[in-house]
Amino acid sequence: MIAAKGYAAPAVNVPLEPYSFERRDVGPHDVQIEILFCGVCHSDLHQVRDEWGGSMFPLVPGHEIVGRVVAVGDHVKSFQAGDLAGVGCMVDSCRTCPSCQEDLEQYCEVGFTGTYNGIEKETGKTTQGGYANQIVVNEHFVLKVSEKLALERVAPLLCAGITTYSPLRQWNVGAGHRVGVMGLGGLGHMAVKLAAAMGAEVTVLSTSPNKEADAKELGAHKFVVTKDADQLKSVTNYFDFIINTVSAPLDLSQYVNLLRRDGTMILLGVPPEAPQLHAFNLIAKRRRVAGSLIGGIAETQEMLDFCAEHNIMSDVEVIPMSQINEAYERMLKGDVHYRFVIDMATL
Amino acid sequence: MIAAKGYAAPAVNVPLEPYSFERRDVGPHDVQIEILFCGVCHSDLHQVRDEWGGSMFPLVPGHEIVGRVVAVGDHVKSFQAGDLAGVGCMVDSCRTCPSCQEDLEQYCEVGFTGTYNGIEKETGKTTQGGYANQIVVNEHFVLKVSEKLALERVAPLLCAGITTYSPLRQWNVGAGHRVGVMGLGGLGHMAVKLAAAMGAEVTVLSTSPNKEADAKELGAHKFVVTKDADQLKSVTNYFDFIINTVSAPLDLSQYVNLLRRDGTMILLGVPPEAPQLHAFNLIAKRRRVAGSLIGGIAETQEMLDFCAEHNIMSDVEVIPMSQINEAYERMLKGDVHYRFVIDMATL
Repeated sequence: MIAAKGYAAPAVNVPLEPYSFERRDVGPHDVQIEILFCGVCHSDLHQVRDEWGGSMFPLVPGHEIVGRVVAVGDHVKSFQAGDLAGVGCMVDSCRTCPSCQEDLEQYCEVGFTGTYNGIEKETGKTTQGGYANQIVVNEHFVLKVSEKLALERVAPLLCAGITTYSPLRQWNVGAGHRVGVMGLGGLGHMAVKLAAAMGAEVTVLSTSPNKEADAKELGAHKFVVTKDADQLKSVTNYFDFIINTVSAPLDLSQYVNLLRRDGTMILLGVPPEAPQLHAFNLIAKRRRVAGSLIGGIAETQEMLDFCAEHNIMSDVEVIPMSQINEAYERMLKGDVHYRFVIDMATL
Repeated sequence: MIAAKGYAAPAVNVPLEPYSFERRDVGPHDVQIEILFCGVCHSDLHQVRDEWGGSMFPLVPGHEIVGRVVAVGDHVKSFQAGDLAGVGCMVDSCRTCPSCQEDLEQYCEVGFTGTYNGIEKETGKTTQGGYANQIVVNEHFVLKVSEKLALERVAPLLCAGITTYSPLRQWNVGAGHRVGVMGLGGLGHMAVKLAAAMGAEVTVLSTSPNKEADAKELGAHKFVVTKDADQLKSVTNYFDFIINTVSAPLDLSQYVNLLRRDGTMILLGVPPEAPQLHAFNLIAKRRRVAGSLIGGIAETQEMLDFCAEHNIMSDVEVIPMSQINEAYERMLKGDVHYRFVIDMATL
């Protein structure tokens, strides 16, 4: 076994603290990565607080991982020591169901293995995430990372990036489309950058007038204050797509009316209570509401390559590992532009 | 003007009674039809009771009209006296907006003119529907009806038929697809017949075990009692499409879980209160919920031709005009298999 150290939540709602544990030995198809940076995703916070149920403690969060390969198994051909590498939300899946066969491991019909809080098939033990110095992952779930981009700004692409990239590709978003982005956080700010890079006209829909300058700087062409009835009315029947990253309670029906005929709202956030949706608001204009979950491994690689080509990175605030609990407090207040990333050199 | 007689609701919630009124003269592009049968749609009842707001009285309902052409305007080339003809939910639209240009008059951006309870452009008066002996309609909104089918069973195709045909075509439903149909009423029974004729495997999802024999007779391959937890579980992640015709309050999230990955639920019914929809139920399998509103005129003709080719008709109970108020009472109790159709010879 490989000795690893990191930060774990020892129990539900207890602050994260230093934690020593073991990674499995490098198997013939495994890649061992020395973690350099790990992004801090809202789902880390949800699971540390066991808000989705089923959290297993001690819990090392983190699924926006970038680092350098330090060892590879005998059969690994795509990676070698010294390569940059990334790991996202998944470290395994069944590989045989129709979804896995279609490179859609995120919809694995047996259930994919989460990077943390999952069960590692090789050992039967709980998977532990990227708030740590080392990780061992099957090569199929390891991504190639370009040397061209700032590594700390690449880390969030592994979750926030692919979660927004995948639906934009799934729905063939591009030039000539009007895209609305609801919620300008970790996911929303990536949706703005990616949709703009794909050629769409991007509008940020926000409750906060003071986010306009930021939105424009990220690449948004328009900004609509949704609390202003006139501004909201000006974009009724307007958008081909709305990327909805909001996980707070919201009036879905009102925002659906901003879609033009045949327009689609893609839900990425999970509000605590199920939002209401007036059937007539969909029927009247043949509108659609769809969901999307991260992205498959091949598509994640495509996204990383797209970002390298278009020089797209997340906007981040780098923190030392010891400040993770303070970072969580700030995230709860929405006080982050737009992603915290842990510098593992500080561990 | 042309003298017409029919049945109208004189005011909100007052029983329908005999009513004499006038149709506009036959203009150069108009077709005058002697109405032979008119279907009784739930929206007739909603509007007579002003449940959607904006009902204008006296109100002659009816938008599932079949009859014989008795006169045509000078410029009408597609119809001549003696032809069978049909009229559905629309008698006009702007004809110039993008939706109209794309043969999607039902989504006219100015708003289509309803067959009743609309405003007739030619006269500025309220349009009056098909519970009458005569109607005058612009040729663009008149459909050709085959002589092969039983006319009284064709009438409901003009609304119930096209409302279910359009989404099945829009989503390319066919062989290899599993289609669930929720609600076995006027719309639902047409969805079963049409989806089966398109080659799909059709399952009726019903709260009533006693509808199984009927469902199978209509062409359903499977029947699931949704109140039986085991039966419901057996179709989790099962359907490519669900045609949801239910307009009663319902747990949308539960039924969305019956869709497989990338499956789509199409909403045709409008429950009185907006149903709740758990975002995660869409996200987890990239599922979709969409709406659909009747169909365009060209597509309505395509549907009528498809039905003539496949010998598809509605299952109806023919009533005399004088029994319309009793028929409404029975509809409120769901006591109809599956559509009342008024025989205008009884007027």
